[in-house]
Amino acid sequence: MPVFAAVDVIAAKRDRHVLTDEQIDWTIAGYTAGDIAEEQMSALLMAILLNGMTASEIARWTAAMIGSGIRLDLSGVGRPTVDKHSTGGVGDKISLPLAPLVAACGAAVPQLSGRGLGHTGGTLDKMESISGWNALLSPEQMIRQLTQVGAVICAASADLAPADRKLYALRDVTATVESIPMIAASIMSKKIAEGTDALVLDVKVGSGAFMKSPVQAAELARTMVELGAAHGVRASALLTDMSTPLGVAVGNAMEVAESLQVLAGGGPPDVVELTLALAREMVSLAGMDVDPAAVLASGAAMDSWRAMVAAQGGDPDSPLPVPRERHVVTASTSGVVSSLDAFAVGTASWRLGAGRARKEDPVQAAAGILCLVKPGDEVILGQPLFELHTDTPERFEPALADLAGALEIAPADTRVERRPLIIDVVR
Amino acid sequence: MPVFAAVDVIAAKRDRHVLTDEQIDWTIAGYTAGDIAEEQMSALLMAILLNGMTASEIARWTAAMIGSGIRLDLSGVGRPTVDKHSTGGVGDKISLPLAPLVAACGAAVPQLSGRGLGHTGGTLDKMESISGWNALLSPEQMIRQLTQVGAVICAASADLAPADRKLYALRDVTATVESIPMIAASIMSKKIAEGTDALVLDVKVGSGAFMKSPVQAAELARTMVELGAAHGVRASALLTDMSTPLGVAVGNAMEVAESLQVLAGGGPPDVVELTLALAREMVSLAGMDVDPAAVLASGAAMDSWRAMVAAQGGDPDSPLPVPRERHVVTASTSGVVSSLDAFAVGTASWRLGAGRARKEDPVQAAAGILCLVKPGDEVILGQPLFELHTDTPERFEPALADLAGALEIAPADTRVERRPLIIDVVR
Repeated sequence: MPVFAAVDVIAAKRDRHVLTDEQIDWTIAGYTAGDIAEEQMSALLMAILLNGMTASEIARWTAAMIGSGIRLDLSGVGRPTVDKHSTGGVGDKISLPLAPLVAACGAAVPQLSGRGLGHTGGTLDKMESISGWNALLSPEQMIRQLTQVGAVICAASADLAPADRKLYALRDVTATVESIPMIAASIMSKKIAEGTDALVLDVKVGSGAFMKSPVQAAELARTMVELGAAHGVRASALLTDMSTPLGVAVGNAMEVAESLQVLAGGGPPDVVELTLALAREMVSLAGMDVDPAAVLASGAAMDSWRAMVAAQGGDPDSPLPVPRERHVVTASTSGVVSSLDAFAVGTASWRLGAGRARKEDPVQAAAGILCLVKPGDEVILGQPLFELHTDTPERFEPALADLAGALEIAPADTRVERRPLIIDVVR
Repeated sequence: MPVFAAVDVIAAKRDRHVLTDEQIDWTIAGYTAGDIAEEQMSALLMAILLNGMTASEIARWTAAMIGSGIRLDLSGVGRPTVDKHSTGGVGDKISLPLAPLVAACGAAVPQLSGRGLGHTGGTLDKMESISGWNALLSPEQMIRQLTQVGAVICAASADLAPADRKLYALRDVTATVESIPMIAASIMSKKIAEGTDALVLDVKVGSGAFMKSPVQAAELARTMVELGAAHGVRASALLTDMSTPLGVAVGNAMEVAESLQVLAGGGPPDVVELTLALAREMVSLAGMDVDPAAVLASGAAMDSWRAMVAAQGGDPDSPLPVPRERHVVTASTSGVVSSLDAFAVGTASWRLGAGRARKEDPVQAAAGILCLVKPGDEVILGQPLFELHTDTPERFEPALADLAGALEIAPADTRVERRPLIIDVVR
């Protein structure tokens, strides 16, 4: 491998040049090995964020990140493998019913997941509300569970895309998270390294998402679908609305409870709609001719869930944690809900203890918010709007401050257009 | 002082917002104290480089850097104080004859200087060619010498603008040197903290300078002159050509020798012209009515030089170091010199040992290049063009590679326009 000076690579991107394949390979390898300093990489990340990258630079950067670790071989699982990734939102518990549903359809779902940071929740934090459940599996344990149960939700091993692990932590403290090339490379390097045959991306758009505009979201979706294709992973993306929370429950244990409602055939209509839409896309990419709605109705998805939880040490029958304190917010006027802001609800839930301020902080399993009304719903004076849960009641006040402008009530005769949940599909 | 999150300050500049006074004060204080991490500051520096700063942001940033340390009080010196700062070039030894010349005119010149890095030389490295000369003076020693001799060339104490010291080292390894706001703040924070009443800036333009275009250079000059005014320092700037080396000698000891020629009444015409132009500007800013040309001709400047060198332990009569090896490059054709590139000559001299690759490296006092012809000169086949000096002859080959395209010879009847040395004045 040729040797460059880190400062020349940074200067090239600063001056809007296209980085060469050799520069990118050298940079990722050097950063992973610790030869390129954190302060050099953060300057490069800011230059990438502000000056962008070409499609071929992103492709090479992603390939170098994959090459920084191992790529799992899931060919022995004996079923088509297909995964889902969401770019993160508020109340987004879809992975929980989706993984066992698609397993019950006959595919294997290797869901490597993360923890929440900031106002968005994390799948691992939610699953850890279940007594005894273990997020840490070796690659061998993961492959065995995929073969036997068809679904696994676990933390990514340190061997998968270690460059991404370092970069993610650095981006978080240097305001360089919101870079489409870096988001795409981060997601796709982990998902490609996990060894899945196919991948459906749920790219969130709106106040509660990292992508605030449909144009940005579509660009991110296209970039990721192309990266998948370049590495032999069949990929497609749904662009979905994240201007308002998904479902009723926002918080760890209460999102598990809502997921169980869906698996039992109930649950909020938007959560069911998105679970089935993503399942159909996954089943189709896996080349199978199965109707997920029929599988869900049959109860087979609930059976897969129980097997998946039990295989990782969890007790599917143990009661979920309940909060020490509750507080109900009621309507101060009658009318129709004209908006409910996802970002405000996510931030308020985070303040109640559902999320963490620093990576090493614990979360409260029972903390969070129930959103009892949705945009378009009619409300009357005194009707409950939110139910806040926490173990630490001093957190009610800051959370209520966040919620102050989160929900707007318009006069009763106002026509409120409900936004479509699924905005577009990128294949 | 209010408390911010570093990531919010970075994000504000990333998103092209104007930083508030409080954000700037907090950032500089936190970085100096080590509370803001290097990787956070480098991301902010890249955002500043790419998105710029307003005049008031630059002013506040500079004030905060001055406030990170002490500001010297030179009021006891008993003469008007006036300093000069050059943005750095190839063969730029002007400080050496200039400081004693302006002292001989009656002012006090507190020249805090730096070392070379990259292709540009440093005044301290040049002075250290003189046997016994010491660059490290305490503020008390500096003030005593200014009172008694009228001129001092020494290293800046660690108490002056310590934020700049940290920032300078960081910018150097993160490709964030070439930022007009950061260059202006760095230079002016040190010069204002040193306590001078007045300051003349020599802003270099051309291949051998950091500013490649006159437009950039004029912007930098205006920014610095305004910063001086805001802090009670009378400042003006000359924009001067650095497309070709200044004088004949490029290298440490040989630049001292050339400076002695100027002090003795000789020396290359361009070095004499620029020394006198800067001296006139300094004397004028100091409010004195003296003709520097007459003072130079009188021999008083040479007397000041000898006193200045001796006051810092140097022997003005000791012979300068000579190189172990020399190599002469001759003309391969006859004609007229149409260009001589400063950057190539600076880089070749650096490779011969005159400069350092890392801050902690030593320099060779005797290494460097004599440029025996200048643009516009007629040359004949076989005539010497360059004389290369080094103690380590294996360095000739890489230096010769740098010089390969440095000098162009056009047919003898070509009309070569000599560029004016002094391009503009900003007051």
